[in-house]
Amino acid sequence: MLLDDLNWRYATKKMDPTRTVAEDKVTRILQAAQLAPTSSGLQPFEILVVTNPDLRAQIRAVAWDQAQVTEGSHLLVFAAWDNYTEARIDAVLAQMAAERGGLTETLSAYYTRLKAMYLPRPAEVNYEHAARQAYIAFAMAVAQAAEDKVDVTPMEGFDPAAVDEILGLRARGLRSVTLLPLGYRAAEGDWLQGLAKVRRPLDQLVTRLD
Amino acid sequence: MLLDDLNWRYATKKMDPTRTVAEDKVTRILQAAQLAPTSSGLQPFEILVVTNPDLRAQIRAVAWDQAQVTEGSHLLVFAAWDNYTEARIDAVLAQMAAERGGLTETLSAYYTRLKAMYLPRPAEVNYEHAARQAYIAFAMAVAQAAEDKVDVTPMEGFDPAAVDEILGLRARGLRSVTLLPLGYRAAEGDWLQGLAKVRRPLDQLVTRLD
Repeated sequence: MLLDDLNWRYATKKMDPTRTVAEDKVTRILQAAQLAPTSSGLQPFEILVVTNPDLRAQIRAVAWDQAQVTEGSHLLVFAAWDNYTEARIDAVLAQMAAERGGLTETLSAYYTRLKAMYLPRPAEVNYEHAARQAYIAFAMAVAQAAEDKVDVTPMEGFDPAAVDEILGLRARGLRSVTLLPLGYRAAEGDWLQGLAKVRRPLDQLVTRLD
Repeated sequence: MLLDDLNWRYATKKMDPTRTVAEDKVTRILQAAQLAPTSSGLQPFEILVVTNPDLRAQIRAVAWDQAQVTEGSHLLVFAAWDNYTEARIDAVLAQMAAERGGLTETLSAYYTRLKAMYLPRPAEVNYEHAARQAYIAFAMAVAQAAEDKVDVTPMEGFDPAAVDEILGLRARGLRSVTLLPLGYRAAEGDWLQGLAKVRRPLDQLVTRLD
């Protein structure tokens, strides 16, 4: 059950560096991100899976020295498109046409309207929109990891420009938005482990308009 | 299994207006959103659950007349904080202290640093950051609905300023970011139902850096 999984998970502060997440679990986490719904089906992001120790050490240095970056076995970097472009949208349209039995007039008209709306906008506006989509995928990855009892640390605390530089993302039209180290919680040394999960009560978070 | 649920779901285009999602399922969907991880535990958003027919008709009119808004049984509106304020952050800190055995120096110092970072920033920057957190909760709601075989339509296609006006959100320091009608797919009349789910293949979405 998702609710049980979400109650089980926490932002792991200390991972056991001797344990490795099995590749089939990593793949399932990536598949959940892949299946996330996104605006107009654009999936305007990529995911980097970093196991390389040198790259992870460099990233840790620009991520407040958070140890999970190197002590987990895998580091996922969610990177949003820096802008919408005609080529990117056309590639989505082409795949959709190919997998749904051809390019219909409705489909073509939809993406023509979308390009007319998105392409004139400032890159920053489009990037912010793409980043939000990446967060949906990020959330699905967190949920899938919890189902597989893989520990993760959802992270925004890093210098995105520095991570982009380390991974050469800007040259690929990408900008890092979140990090997600994968691993297993250490038995000791995690100050957050065992502390109560604190959430605003539903009656404060939710308003009913009946 | 989350992957099965994510494969089952789709952005339902036509809902059966005679069917109502049971309240216990609505509650579980809200609980999943409540359990979503957010930056520094701030949960910088609220969720409006709109069943009122008049309000939903008004929202449908500013949401490209998408029928799911009124033909589902519930409409969730995810609304992000328009800014971070001292009062909002202090309330989070107070709850955390209360539920984790008192206000420690570490906890206090953490949120003092956070306020020093967030409060001087332009409201728009803070709102964009809050909106991203709302998307994590939005994704968890989508996943929980799928587990309970409740159909949803994740929606960005609406005029946020108009929805804010209809629901009086700006006076409460909130800005609508996404809509999520809940309901059950109609047996007929949904052009998307049954079409292949199209996603970029993992080898295009993911880069391994070993």
